[in-house]
Amino acid sequence: MICHFDLRLQTRGHGHMQDLTGRVQALVEKAGIQDGLAHVFAMGSTAAVGTIEFEPGLEEDLPAMLDRLIPPSREYGHERAWHDGNGHSHLQATLLGPSLSVPVRDGRLVLGTWQQIIHLECDIRPRERTVVVTVLG
Amino acid sequence: MICHFDLRLQTRGHGHMQDLTGRVQALVEKAGIQDGLAHVFAMGSTAAVGTIEFEPGLEEDLPAMLDRLIPPSREYGHERAWHDGNGHSHLQATLLGPSLSVPVRDGRLVLGTWQQIIHLECDIRPRERTVVVTVLG
Amino acid sequence: MICHFDLRLQTRGHGHMQDLTGRVQALVEKAGIQDGLAHVFAMGSTAAVGTIEFEPGLEEDLPAMLDRLIPPSREYGHERAWHDGNGHSHLQATLLGPSLSVPVRDGRLVLGTWQQIIHLECDIRPRERTVVVTVLG
Repeated sequence: MICHFDLRLQTRGHGHMQDLTGRVQALVEKAGIQDGLAHVFAMGSTAAVGTIEFEPGLEEDLPAMLDRLIPPSREYGHERAWHDGNGHSHLQATLLGPSLSVPVRDGRLVLGTWQQIIHLECDIRPRERTVVVTVLG
Repeated sequence: MICHFDLRLQTRGHGHMQDLTGRVQALVEKAGIQDGLAHVFAMGSTAAVGTIEFEPGLEEDLPAMLDRLIPPSREYGHERAWHDGNGHSHLQATLLGPSLSVPVRDGRLVLGTWQQIIHLECDIRPRERTVVVTVLG
Repeated sequence: MICHFDLRLQTRGHGHMQDLTGRVQALVEKAGIQDGLAHVFAMGSTAAVGTIEFEPGLEEDLPAMLDRLIPPSREYGHERAWHDGNGHSHLQATLLGPSLSVPVRDGRLVLGTWQQIIHLECDIRPRERTVVVTVLG
């Protein structure tokens, strides 16, 4: 059995991290699947998903780390075509990645105690986002 | 239902990025699956897959960013065994990753408008590559 | 068909890389699946999975590269809450990622000749770890 769901998110702009764990768990329950996988996919080229301990320190640290490795700047080739100042957003999103699968066992996401599913906005302005959750089982 | 397909690619060497979206979509149609997932896997330890806006600026930016973070060099431990000058290729490929899943809905890959599936050659010479596409549904 | 298995690992601490390929292949055989996917998931927020050529040089290079990009330090926001000195561990694990799928064809993992499935300990001390392997087919 395969079910798709769309999660709608409003983001506050660059570096806004949101905990999706509760919402993904609710969709697993809605799908009624006991054993399988939950796949989480960030639609769009300037957002990403992943897992992290969701707490205020790391909420700052993850976007700060990405900005240090891939700094905001006008020097990216991407700017030649678009002049929209978000070359770093594309690269950060590609590096963190849009796709994550989490096991589902006995109807529950299998995660570590301090491991949450997150969405990270990498674009430079607030965006409406869609995360596609696919439950297989 | 599960179908595997092999995509054969010829790459031009280090940093060559290719858009696989059309070819993966064609395989989804060949599989005849309406709802499920398409999994894309880069065989080999010096190539990667991911998503990005496929345009000439980012075609330069992604490999340039990886070369800045993980520079070509003879100082990697990998060189002690192999002396083939591609230690950075291995590390870049591992960091970007070989595995990507994309939802399939109504027979179509679910991607953002500016979000394409790409293969990135990280090795230092042209290679023949196999990408394994697995369609589940 | 979907089967879950728990792989138990004992790690030696920060940067300890272990080759899981043989153990994952054994679970694919135990599941009796000929065609499908094997999903490998690192439970916990300070460990990661991936693929790499498993050899002594890269065993040093991968953790060294992550430590260069995301250095151990007390300056991470994460330290404010926890003071446990592993802010970099969380960020390294998130960047490399906890989730990997590998195609299974004719009962065998489809990997390049020099491409192994690895677990990387990013935490600063030895840990007992669980890797969840989900075989679909």
